[in-house]
Amino acid sequence: MNTNAFRKLSYGVYIVSAWDNGRATGCTANSAMQITSTPATIAVSINHNNYTNKCIQDSGRFAVSILSEQSDPSIIGTFGFQSGETVNKFDSVAYELKGYMPVVKDSCAYIVCEVIDKMETETHTVFLGKVVDADVLSDQDPMTYAYYHNVVKGKSPKNAPTYIPEAQESKATEKWVCGICGYVYEGDTPFEELPEDYTCPVCKQPKEIFVKK
Amino acid sequence: MNTNAFRKLSYGVYIVSAWDNGRATGCTANSAMQITSTPATIAVSINHNNYTNKCIQDSGRFAVSILSEQSDPSIIGTFGFQSGETVNKFDSVAYELKGYMPVVKDSCAYIVCEVIDKMETETHTVFLGKVVDADVLSDQDPMTYAYYHNVVKGKSPKNAPTYIPEAQESKATEKWVCGICGYVYEGDTPFEELPEDYTCPVCKQPKEIFVKK
Repeated sequence: MNTNAFRKLSYGVYIVSAWDNGRATGCTANSAMQITSTPATIAVSINHNNYTNKCIQDSGRFAVSILSEQSDPSIIGTFGFQSGETVNKFDSVAYELKGYMPVVKDSCAYIVCEVIDKMETETHTVFLGKVVDADVLSDQDPMTYAYYHNVVKGKSPKNAPTYIPEAQESKATEKWVCGICGYVYEGDTPFEELPEDYTCPVCKQPKEIFVKK
Repeated sequence: MNTNAFRKLSYGVYIVSAWDNGRATGCTANSAMQITSTPATIAVSINHNNYTNKCIQDSGRFAVSILSEQSDPSIIGTFGFQSGETVNKFDSVAYELKGYMPVVKDSCAYIVCEVIDKMETETHTVFLGKVVDADVLSDQDPMTYAYYHNVVKGKSPKNAPTYIPEAQESKATEKWVCGICGYVYEGDTPFEELPEDYTCPVCKQPKEIFVKK
């Protein structure tokens, strides 16, 4: 597996913010996407280790501030490389209230959401938010992760899904191959001894379809 | 609420493919994002009405082909504006087997996933996939939705979360619109004066398909 393929996925650069018992906080995120149009919903993925995750769980609301290519790149560092538990990130970044939520002033649009569902993964929570307020703040182009990476020369914080550690794996292959999808059988039971109703786990075609290679 | 804010979210342009009982099929999607890095997982959002949704549910696997700026834009129309239930989309789009899945040849990277979780919304399923194979196919820049919209002048298919009904789009007085994919002709030559063999640059349908609006 070549994890560099993940770098070809396109993202924006966002500040996901929430209230922490009356104090505004937030974190940098790349993973936000619209899920449905009516009613409008947005999904964001936030690491369990991000203090913002806890704040969203507690308050049930989050705001996505969409940074533009002209946004001050230091905002990304302020929100991305330190914890909102110990630092008042909004002390150095101006915000205004939109849909009752703190939104970064220096952004080109914002979307305020009410959490209506979530999905847990090993390291991140995917929050599904129903949009309760949204507006465009400027006609500047949104900053893409590629722009940030290539132009601003940013780096992913460790908690980001886009973070890539050094190690990569490879795998070995063997003999019986599905004639439709090319799936290679690698089970412990010899292929010949598999039951006659065995089917390809990928394309569901019957055992006869397999060829020895 | 100003839904134009949603247009400031950044996306790529992807073909999400699956096996349909031994037949390769798929659909165009914008909504794909990495959720975790170890183990690597990817979320994609697919409309309930897309036949590909059923195929992913049945087979438990999907592939994401990441289109590049150089990819033939007609691929987007082929996979985005017709149903895989009735059309063999891969008949006109070359694919190769990667991780036992059909992957669009004319793309810059692919990611193959095994479904490990999902979240239902009113119109879309968010599939969470564990990455089982991934690779970079070319060093071309990935196509972003903004590039597609601004350069290729594409439009969202109706099933896409990024779809915005006609009423909210900025309106010109009179325009020629492709009856299949909704592409709006904006060339300098008056539409009537275009050669008879003119075809829609997105879905490749003939001139007669265009309607005046």
